Amino acid sequence: MIAPGFTGGTLDRADPVRHDPQAFAALRTDGRGRLLKLTLDTPEVNDDGRLGWAPISAAPAKAELLLLGLEAGVPYFVAWHPGEPLPMARSPALVAALDTMQPGEAATYAAARSLLAWHDRHGYCANCGTPTTIFRAGWGRSCSKCGAEHFPRVDPVVIMLAEHRGRVLVGRQASWPAGRYSALAGFLEPGESIEEAVAREILEESGVAVARVRYVASQPWPFPSQLMIACIAEAEREAITLDPNELEDAIWVSRAGVRAALDRLPNAPFLPPPSYAIAHTLLTAWVDGA
Amino acid sequence: MIAPGFTGGTLDRADPVRHDPQAFAALRTDGRGRLLKLTLDTPEVNDDGRLGWAPISAAPAKAELLLLGLEAGVPYFVAWHPGEPLPMARSPALVAALDTMQPGEAATYAAARSLLAWHDRHGYCANCGTPTTIFRAGWGRSCSKCGAEHFPRVDPVVIMLAEHRGRVLVGRQASWPAGRYSALAGFLEPGESIEEAVAREILEESGVAVARVRYVASQPWPFPSQLMIACIAEAEREAITLDPNELEDAIWVSRAGVRAALDRLPNAPFLPPPSYAIAHTLLTAWVDGA
Repeated sequence: MIAPGFTGGTLDRADPVRHDPQAFAALRTDGRGRLLKLTLDTPEVNDDGRLGWAPISAAPAKAELLLLGLEAGVPYFVAWHPGEPLPMARSPALVAALDTMQPGEAATYAAARSLLAWHDRHGYCANCGTPTTIFRAGWGRSCSKCGAEHFPRVDPVVIMLAEHRGRVLVGRQASWPAGRYSALAGFLEPGESIEEAVAREILEESGVAVARVRYVASQPWPFPSQLMIACIAEAEREAITLDPNELEDAIWVSRAGVRAALDRLPNAPFLPPPSYAIAHTLLTAWVDGA
Repeated sequence: MIAPGFTGGTLDRADPVRHDPQAFAALRTDGRGRLLKLTLDTPEVNDDGRLGWAPISAAPAKAELLLLGLEAGVPYFVAWHPGEPLPMARSPALVAALDTMQPGEAATYAAARSLLAWHDRHGYCANCGTPTTIFRAGWGRSCSKCGAEHFPRVDPVVIMLAEHRGRVLVGRQASWPAGRYSALAGFLEPGESIEEAVAREILEESGVAVARVRYVASQPWPFPSQLMIACIAEAEREAITLDPNELEDAIWVSRAGVRAALDRLPNAPFLPPPSYAIAHTLLTAWVDGA
């Protein structure tokens, strides 16, 4: 059983409540309600790896309450603060929090962060330019002028290993920490399947042609709101032609090399991606025979 | 090898051209350029199942040319007509065209239609409300006021069969042609994986709890721009509790019943989805042992 980071959330998303403004209004004033503790986009994480929650009464009057879901009848919310957008970069405190959150807790955080980031950047109707208002318990925005309804965006991204004769291709971007390599990745575009996006992205970034793409796993990625779709593809040859706008370097690594990297051994050929990234899951799955 | 509808396109998306306005300008005046023949959103399909193309000189002066890609050095475009949005419903002529297009041709059409529909509905900056302008050879819109860049949206949708003791669950919406049943489906949301979205959607729509989700295939769906992700999940029991807002009916069907439906036999328990829909691919794969 593969369990990537940011999966395993336990909240019931309570779709019927989103379609019932009265039910949502009742939940907003439910004294049992809980509010996700956030400083900008950094959650409070307790010693047991669980998220911190405040009473719903702690929410500022100007905040918009978005319903994350229900558990045992208790509503869980996150507060969106109009005009105070989340930071684009991950702070050291957030990186530390991600390292310590339990996976299921990280899933709840991921939903909250993606939702907040979407509201930050989607206050106006893309169809007519009018300011929009929140509906569906926080899971949509509607336009009173043209009637358009807008829903949170999720951008599918393919992330993949090309493999050839027992080695896989990993690359690095110039902006990454020194020594880190990871799976190649890129946004899937209109008019292509997952398998086609995998082949196009590997070819564009590394010049390596692949065939026979197999799906491995998926995860949500809340920076700001991607669906990461992890695959392995069979390469036809190993010659690399880098796209320098995308990658600073790309290398072929043996199973032993990948294992050493995941184990963070001193002689490893690269530093691995963080454990909550599906690239880590994917490399682990490949080492284990996926 | 599973080959869903709308896959197998042969155009090179020419990503470097999108980042090079001069190269794009040169392609726009290349006398070899080809323009997709469309009446509203219905393509011209020749007797051999191929799309019809006009010389690029046929493009109206007011149209915006979007680069679909290159093949053998020849640029292929589709014209977007600002202020003349595509129809929401599929016309009988379009349905007929979809039935006759070769898959690879349908892939080119899918990219074109999704791109046009996105421009239709995204003329304004969602971040600040200002009218935006096209860049990246048609694959983006940028805002001159706030600097935001916007890219075509692709909405991941899970579409799936629950299976239990040799039968699968198919459902129908009230608006569908009489007798048609298909795989259940729904939009994936921020903060969930493919596998989690599959389980949530089946539970919401039919009351059936599932585990062990396996990925089968994917396809783009250009009405307006979904990524359809087809899966099979193992149900724990067969009792159905319909969500009447989503489904009119849902039934469990044996392998022989699904085969009869796909073969359009007179005694079949339901009429199948069209062959270019991945639901058809998924049912076929399941019958064949996927």
